[in-house]
Amino acid sequence: MPEGDTVSATSDIRRTPRGLETRSRIVDSAARLFYVRGVSATTLDEVRLASGTSKSQLYNHFKDKRALIHAVIDVQSKFVLAREEQHLQGVRTLSGLRRWRDALIQANSLQDGSYGCALGAMSIELSDNDEQARQALNASVDAWRDMLVRTLTRLRALGVLTEDADPQRLGTGLLAALQGGYVLAQNAHSSEPMGVALDMALDHIACFARA
Amino acid sequence: MPEGDTVSATSDIRRTPRGLETRSRIVDSAARLFYVRGVSATTLDEVRLASGTSKSQLYNHFKDKRALIHAVIDVQSKFVLAREEQHLQGVRTLSGLRRWRDALIQANSLQDGSYGCALGAMSIELSDNDEQARQALNASVDAWRDMLVRTLTRLRALGVLTEDADPQRLGTGLLAALQGGYVLAQNAHSSEPMGVALDMALDHIACFARA
Repeated sequence: MPEGDTVSATSDIRRTPRGLETRSRIVDSAARLFYVRGVSATTLDEVRLASGTSKSQLYNHFKDKRALIHAVIDVQSKFVLAREEQHLQGVRTLSGLRRWRDALIQANSLQDGSYGCALGAMSIELSDNDEQARQALNASVDAWRDMLVRTLTRLRALGVLTEDADPQRLGTGLLAALQGGYVLAQNAHSSEPMGVALDMALDHIACFARA
Repeated sequence: MPEGDTVSATSDIRRTPRGLETRSRIVDSAARLFYVRGVSATTLDEVRLASGTSKSQLYNHFKDKRALIHAVIDVQSKFVLAREEQHLQGVRTLSGLRRWRDALIQANSLQDGSYGCALGAMSIELSDNDEQARQALNASVDAWRDMLVRTLTRLRALGVLTEDADPQRLGTGLLAALQGGYVLAQNAHSSEPMGVALDMALDHIACFARA
């Protein structure tokens, strides 16, 4: 056995239900702080305080801040993609797509436009300084775009959109309108410009509606 | 005279050509570091090192990091708004608007999509933690949107766009497409999705072109 006893013991502790619960508490606290205050602006001490964990517990699970950041990206990606899948999988009409838009605007207006998109904000902060983080975030954003592309492809197959509609391009444009809408909303502390941005993208998609 | 000798001397030093040159060097170095690495990730020591200034010189001009951040917002806003004014003021056709798009994409592709928009990235990092910064950035983003609205209003007055075109909404949507394009480009380290996002917004505006 190549590992020393201490390392084995550490691994064991991490795999116990209590160890997994502690890890999850740390990641959830970090995700919340990163979302509200930003990644760089959040210290590991603040994460410890918010999660009620000791320094040794924190370092038992994450060797450094970068490891914690990657765990948060993983959790936030799963959260956003599950939410989007739930909203988009049943969309079979343009009204359905507008309801997806309405749900996003409602969630954003509840926090007065603050904080932006968890994935978009982390992309801006991390993409140029942590290549592993960029790749993970890019994979999630690609998966998100693919969901939109699949939804638009379905609308085309159902005859809601004409054959002229290009789901790849429209899906990318729709996701950009959403991300740009988040930036303007955060800047204005109001979801109003985000609504205008998404409406313009949806109006453009509606230009391809079969008469 | 209410001020002590020391304070007066400090004010005098700050107003000399050499003092103003030092201040400008500090702000330019900070702007570059904030843009490439992020605001929170940049320390005042790094700004001192990059600008070749001493601690006392730095604190002579900026009482804390927040004061330096506000000076950087001011400089970056002037830079972005001057660039946009230069590109947009002469636009009198849809082709002219596409040349504005091409210039933005070219600049973005020179850095492989990295760093995003100086104003958008600072908005995301600062809007929820520094109300003064948010208001300053919001004023700049509003001025940017107004430039786009004026450009679209001119195109409508010239008969390039029909009376149905709503410059306010289309201008907001166009700026959102640009900001969202920056986010996707930074994430992908490629300006390709930014091009698709802007093309979709411009295609939508072209739907209002007079036949």
